[in-house]
Amino acid sequence: MIEVEEAARIIASTVLELPTIHVPLEKSLGRVLRQVVVADADFPPFNRVMMDGIAIRHKDFERGIRDFQILGIQAAGASQKELKGQGSCLEVMTGSIAPAGADAVVPYEEIVIDGKNKIAAVRTDDVRPGKHIHDKGSDKKAGDLLVQAGKLIGAPEIAVAASVGLIALKVTGNPSIAIVSTGEELVDIHEQPQAHQIRRSNVYALAAELKRFGIESAHYHLDDDKKNLTQKLEGILYAHDVIITSGGVSRGKFDFLPEAFEDLGVKKSFHRVKQKPGKPFWFGTKAPGKVVFAFPGNPVSTFLCFHKYFVPWLRKTLGMDRTSHVRAVLGADFEIKTGLTYFLQVKTHINENGQIVAKPNTGKGSGDHANLLSGDAFLELPGNTRVFKRGDVFNLISFRNS
Amino acid sequence: MIEVEEAARIIASTVLELPTIHVPLEKSLGRVLRQVVVADADFPPFNRVMMDGIAIRHKDFERGIRDFQILGIQAAGASQKELKGQGSCLEVMTGSIAPAGADAVVPYEEIVIDGKNKIAAVRTDDVRPGKHIHDKGSDKKAGDLLVQAGKLIGAPEIAVAASVGLIALKVTGNPSIAIVSTGEELVDIHEQPQAHQIRRSNVYALAAELKRFGIESAHYHLDDDKKNLTQKLEGILYAHDVIITSGGVSRGKFDFLPEAFEDLGVKKSFHRVKQKPGKPFWFGTKAPGKVVFAFPGNPVSTFLCFHKYFVPWLRKTLGMDRTSHVRAVLGADFEIKTGLTYFLQVKTHINENGQIVAKPNTGKGSGDHANLLSGDAFLELPGNTRVFKRGDVFNLISFRNS
Repeated sequence: MIEVEEAARIIASTVLELPTIHVPLEKSLGRVLRQVVVADADFPPFNRVMMDGIAIRHKDFERGIRDFQILGIQAAGASQKELKGQGSCLEVMTGSIAPAGADAVVPYEEIVIDGKNKIAAVRTDDVRPGKHIHDKGSDKKAGDLLVQAGKLIGAPEIAVAASVGLIALKVTGNPSIAIVSTGEELVDIHEQPQAHQIRRSNVYALAAELKRFGIESAHYHLDDDKKNLTQKLEGILYAHDVIITSGGVSRGKFDFLPEAFEDLGVKKSFHRVKQKPGKPFWFGTKAPGKVVFAFPGNPVSTFLCFHKYFVPWLRKTLGMDRTSHVRAVLGADFEIKTGLTYFLQVKTHINENGQIVAKPNTGKGSGDHANLLSGDAFLELPGNTRVFKRGDVFNLISFRNS
Repeated sequence: MIEVEEAARIIASTVLELPTIHVPLEKSLGRVLRQVVVADADFPPFNRVMMDGIAIRHKDFERGIRDFQILGIQAAGASQKELKGQGSCLEVMTGSIAPAGADAVVPYEEIVIDGKNKIAAVRTDDVRPGKHIHDKGSDKKAGDLLVQAGKLIGAPEIAVAASVGLIALKVTGNPSIAIVSTGEELVDIHEQPQAHQIRRSNVYALAAELKRFGIESAHYHLDDDKKNLTQKLEGILYAHDVIITSGGVSRGKFDFLPEAFEDLGVKKSFHRVKQKPGKPFWFGTKAPGKVVFAFPGNPVSTFLCFHKYFVPWLRKTLGMDRTSHVRAVLGADFEIKTGLTYFLQVKTHINENGQIVAKPNTGKGSGDHANLLSGDAFLELPGNTRVFKRGDVFNLISFRNS
């Protein structure tokens, strides 16, 4: 039996090599970038007008000119025009290129236009060189690094990639993941369970979690017959990079998974972790490139192990540049009986100080999915303490986004 | 020009009627539930063994019996067996039904088995009635409400729906959304912009954000010709429930959108909001069931308006039961010049007190998508104050999940 930190360390050292694939820009959301995005031109690419109004020469304004002759319009999307003689101006639109010779924009709000005589009278003293003009290259220069590899692609990354004309992006290919349930008491969800049976649910929970990462998984159910189970597992190991199992790793008479995996050449990294829930967790690898997460069958155990161990591993394997650690305040005194690291089910809220407060969400059925309904995270209470006080701060493992 | 709160209030009062649709359970992630989920049986449905070990009669233990005769195995998934005469036991597996007559489980860790004589010797004093048995119906009773309508469906909801045998769920159907860009300076992303042009990017940002809600949008680009634009908008209004536009709502000569919408019978609710960025925001509706969000064209303005106004509206329209308000601590002193509500670009982290700290992420290009790359939220600084101090707490509008 090993400590939680040791288990996490071993898992983190086991990273799969995944291929680089190209995806169309529109399909890149939620993927991990495997290339850099570089400015193909200056940002902005021209001196860009930032307000609707008139473009003038600041020198004219300095000379005391306040009434400017309107000689035309510089529309957005039109080629650059030129500001002619002294005291002239061009109407300019937001997004247009600043006319050649113009170095200040006065917004419509600060001028009065005499339409008949085409005169714009400036009604402000606050005209400065460059005002309301976003200078070419002032944000980024052509060649500047915009997005680094390893970034999780969100809307801003997609927008910036569009700006520089990338119609496809290099991203990390997803691993092939199998979710395997075991347990003779489990029946399919369309079946009516007998008195001693329940419906499968872990596989649905894990499949949904993987979908949040854009990963479609394959699903299998294995019987508690060691020979059959080993045979089927062999095929599953052959077909997939990552196997996540639930159940079959405790001390029961039919808990054959650890043995079966070892028979198939999967090397055990550890079995049993000093934690509650999820103590019987078994983890192993098989070269080249197979990883096995064998979680205990209790629904909350599987769910906790998935979020505590699998998700950080997946993020690292996908090449994400960072996983932020979230800390939260315990919202009520809590006591534990075991010397094991305790993953407390909690419901979080943000208080008026901007603090994340985690209230215990124990319930009678703390081992069942139904208890997760009213919660959104686990708070990690270290095993070296028994009494935890309201206001203490611990690591938070969230399983909801909103 | 109206206040931010007033704009938010008007938008919140404009909720679309959306249809209820059925989706297969596996496709329900991220949808909003339009039915209740009720326990179809007790949770757990039988007295469930929680540890591998032996099941005994507690009365026998009370009588002083410590060596129990093993008469068989109650496996998970097997029909219920019965505990026979005094001093007998059955081996039981996690997940199995507790044998009839047994009322306590002693885990393997607390017994010694003499395999030859089939005797299990109990090595603990801590045997109590019901120990390691999860009583039928102790979590939920048949008929109990498990999930309420209005819940955003996550992995726990899917798992629980699977448990009660729901192979499909009633959820809110998505609105049909059009994203419309305007601006003659914008070219397609596969084009090489001329000196006065830039590539379209707002539409990519918004489409990506909608995908995070599982919504595929339609995209259009309109020229700055009023007649053409009005004609095309008419078709777009006919085909979609929601129109999100970017650009064309300022004071420019070619900012025809407000007029065009009004010509087409879209009733203006407001034009211009006391905020920066995003001041020229126009919002209107057309009965029955059309809503128009006309955002300013500046990328960050569009992005901010989308998150500040559109996302809460969408969540409410989809029928979500709640939108949690997030507060965060300003991480550095900050001053604003205008009397407008200022949406400060920030990068958040969680400090050792579990507080969300928002550091200003201004940059030279605060209007461009590139500046959003290094941030993850906006902090809403009210317009009635100019000087904001490190440590003050404000509303946070996040645009990233991780």
